[in-house]
Amino acid sequence: MEVKIVAGIDIGGTNTKYGLVNENGKVLIHDSLPTKKFPNAEKFVASITKIILSEAQKIEGAELQGIGIGSPNGNYYSGTIGFAPNLPWKGVIPMAKLFMDAAHLPVALTNDAKAATIGEMIFGGAKNMKHFYFITLGTGLGSGIVVDGKIVYGHDGFAGEMGHTIVYENGRQCGCGRRGCLEQYCSATGITRTYLEIIDQSVKKLSIPREEVSSKFIYEKFRRGEIAAKQAFEFTGHVLGIALANACCYTSPEAIFLFGGLTLSGDAIFKPVRKSFRKNILNVYKGKTKILPSALPENEAGILGAASLMWNELKKYGK
Amino acid sequence: MEVKIVAGIDIGGTNTKYGLVNENGKVLIHDSLPTKKFPNAEKFVASITKIILSEAQKIEGAELQGIGIGSPNGNYYSGTIGFAPNLPWKGVIPMAKLFMDAAHLPVALTNDAKAATIGEMIFGGAKNMKHFYFITLGTGLGSGIVVDGKIVYGHDGFAGEMGHTIVYENGRQCGCGRRGCLEQYCSATGITRTYLEIIDQSVKKLSIPREEVSSKFIYEKFRRGEIAAKQAFEFTGHVLGIALANACCYTSPEAIFLFGGLTLSGDAIFKPVRKSFRKNILNVYKGKTKILPSALPENEAGILGAASLMWNELKKYGK
Repeated sequence: MEVKIVAGIDIGGTNTKYGLVNENGKVLIHDSLPTKKFPNAEKFVASITKIILSEAQKIEGAELQGIGIGSPNGNYYSGTIGFAPNLPWKGVIPMAKLFMDAAHLPVALTNDAKAATIGEMIFGGAKNMKHFYFITLGTGLGSGIVVDGKIVYGHDGFAGEMGHTIVYENGRQCGCGRRGCLEQYCSATGITRTYLEIIDQSVKKLSIPREEVSSKFIYEKFRRGEIAAKQAFEFTGHVLGIALANACCYTSPEAIFLFGGLTLSGDAIFKPVRKSFRKNILNVYKGKTKILPSALPENEAGILGAASLMWNELKKYGK
Repeated sequence: MEVKIVAGIDIGGTNTKYGLVNENGKVLIHDSLPTKKFPNAEKFVASITKIILSEAQKIEGAELQGIGIGSPNGNYYSGTIGFAPNLPWKGVIPMAKLFMDAAHLPVALTNDAKAATIGEMIFGGAKNMKHFYFITLGTGLGSGIVVDGKIVYGHDGFAGEMGHTIVYENGRQCGCGRRGCLEQYCSATGITRTYLEIIDQSVKKLSIPREEVSSKFIYEKFRRGEIAAKQAFEFTGHVLGIALANACCYTSPEAIFLFGGLTLSGDAIFKPVRKSFRKNILNVYKGKTKILPSALPENEAGILGAASLMWNELKKYGK
C-alpha cells in the first residue's frame, strides 16, 4: 500500500530535529543532529537529505512528497534564512533551494513560529478554525496569525512579530535594540526578569545563582507557595492578557493558542492571563475568544509544524 | 451604451450621504438626507431606495448593479447594524435585508472604516497593494486591515478596532468603558484632550471656551507658531508612530494610509508620526512601510467606500 509522507525539519541553534510525518500528523520516525557540527549549510543539507531519503525508503510503500522546514529567521517567500543570530552560518542562506537541489523534491520554508502555527491548524487544536493566533512563550515570544484559514506572511514574509510590539515605552532593553518589547515581559526570559526584579526589591535571598533562575525554577517556587513567584506569574499574565486583548482588535480571532516552555506551568500562567484578558477585552469581543493551550505535543511540535507547512503546500496544488 | 453603476450609502449620525458610482470610481450624482428625520429604519430605507432608483433611471443606459452601505457598527457577515450609539434607531437593524427587500438588488454592508478601506484599495492609493492598513483619524480612530488583497473581518465580522487597543494602562477614560485606548490619544478628540492638558499645565489662557477647541483650532494655532499646539501635534504623532510600528509586527503591510479630519493638518501631523514610526519600527521592517495620506477625496470617501464594497462583491461573483 502506498503511504504518502513528508519530511519535517526543525532547525534550531543547538539541535536540528527532523522526522517523517504521514497525512494524519503521525510522526513515523524522528531524530536530531547538532546544528553547530556543520561548518557550512551545504554540508548540513547534504547530511540531512541523505538520512531522510534513506529513512523514507525503509518505510514500506512510503512515497516522500516533499520537505517542510521551520527555522529562526526563515522567510517563506524567498526560502532563505537571513542573519539568524543563533545559527552557525552567517549572511543569507538559500536553504530551500539547497534542499531542493539535494533532494529533488518540493521544499517549503518559514520561520519556526509560523510552522508551528500551521501545525496547530492542520493537526492541533485549530482544525476548522479560520481565525486564530498562535503564541510561543519560550526564550522569546514568537507568533503566527491565521486569517481566513491562511497564515499571514505580510508583504515581505516577516509578518507575525508580536513579541516585538512595544508595550512599555522606555521599558526593558530588548535584544532587538529597542526598549519595552512584549517578549521582555511575556516569555521564559521575561518572567525571569520580573522574578529577579521582585526578589531584588525584597529582603528575600535567592537560593541559587541569578544566572540559573529559569521559568521552571520560578514555577517550582510557585508550587511551594512562594509569594515572589506568584507575583511574577501574576504580572506576566497581566501584561500578556492586555497584549492578547489588543491583538483581538486586529483580526478578531476565535481562539488564541499558547505554546512553549512557560505554558508548562499550566494554571499558574493561564489563570492570570485569562483574568487580565477578560478584564481588558473590548465589549464587542467579550466571551467570544478562547485562550487555549496548544494541542501540539511539546517534543514533536517543531517537526510536526515543519511537516504541516509542506502538507499545506501540497494541498494548495491539489496533490 | 450600457453603463454599469452601483449605489453607495454612507450612514452617519447626522447625515446619510448617498450617490451613484461607476466602475471607474466616478461619483455620478450624490446628495444627502438628515438621518435623524426618520423615526424608523423602514421609512429611512424606503425614502433612500426611491431616490436611488429614480436617479439611476435618469442616467442614460445606466444599469444599477447593487447597493453598498457603510455604517457605524455595521457587520458584513450579518448585514446588520447593532447598537450604534449615534444612530436614531435602537437595537439590531437588519439594514442589508431591508434594502434588499425594497430594491430587489444585491446589497452589502460593513462598517464605515472598512468601507473606506475597500475604497482605498479599489479607487485610491492602495491599488495593487496586497497588504495595508487604513486609519481614519476623526472623532475616534477607525481602521481597516487588508491582508492578501482582502479586508479582514475576523471570525465575527468585528476585526479592525485598532482605536481600542490599550496603549497606556490606566490612561485616559474611553467611551468604550475602559482606559488608555489609542483613540483617546490619536484622533481629533485625542489631540484636543492633549492640547487642553498642555494649556492647563501652562500659564497660558484659552482665547475661546474649552468646548469649542477642535483639531482645526489647534492646527490654526500651530500655523501661528504656538508652542502648545506644536507640542500637541508632537505628542499625538509620537503615540501614533509607536502604534503603527506595533501594527507592522502583526501583518507587515506595504503602506499605512491615514485619513480623516486630523490629516487635513498635513505635515503638522505627518512629520511627527513618521519621525516616531522610524524611531520605533523593528529592524526587519525598516524602510519598507510607507505612511501615506489617503488618496480618497475627503467629501466623497464615504460614498466611494460604500460603492467599492459593492463593486468588490460583484467582482467576486464574476459580474
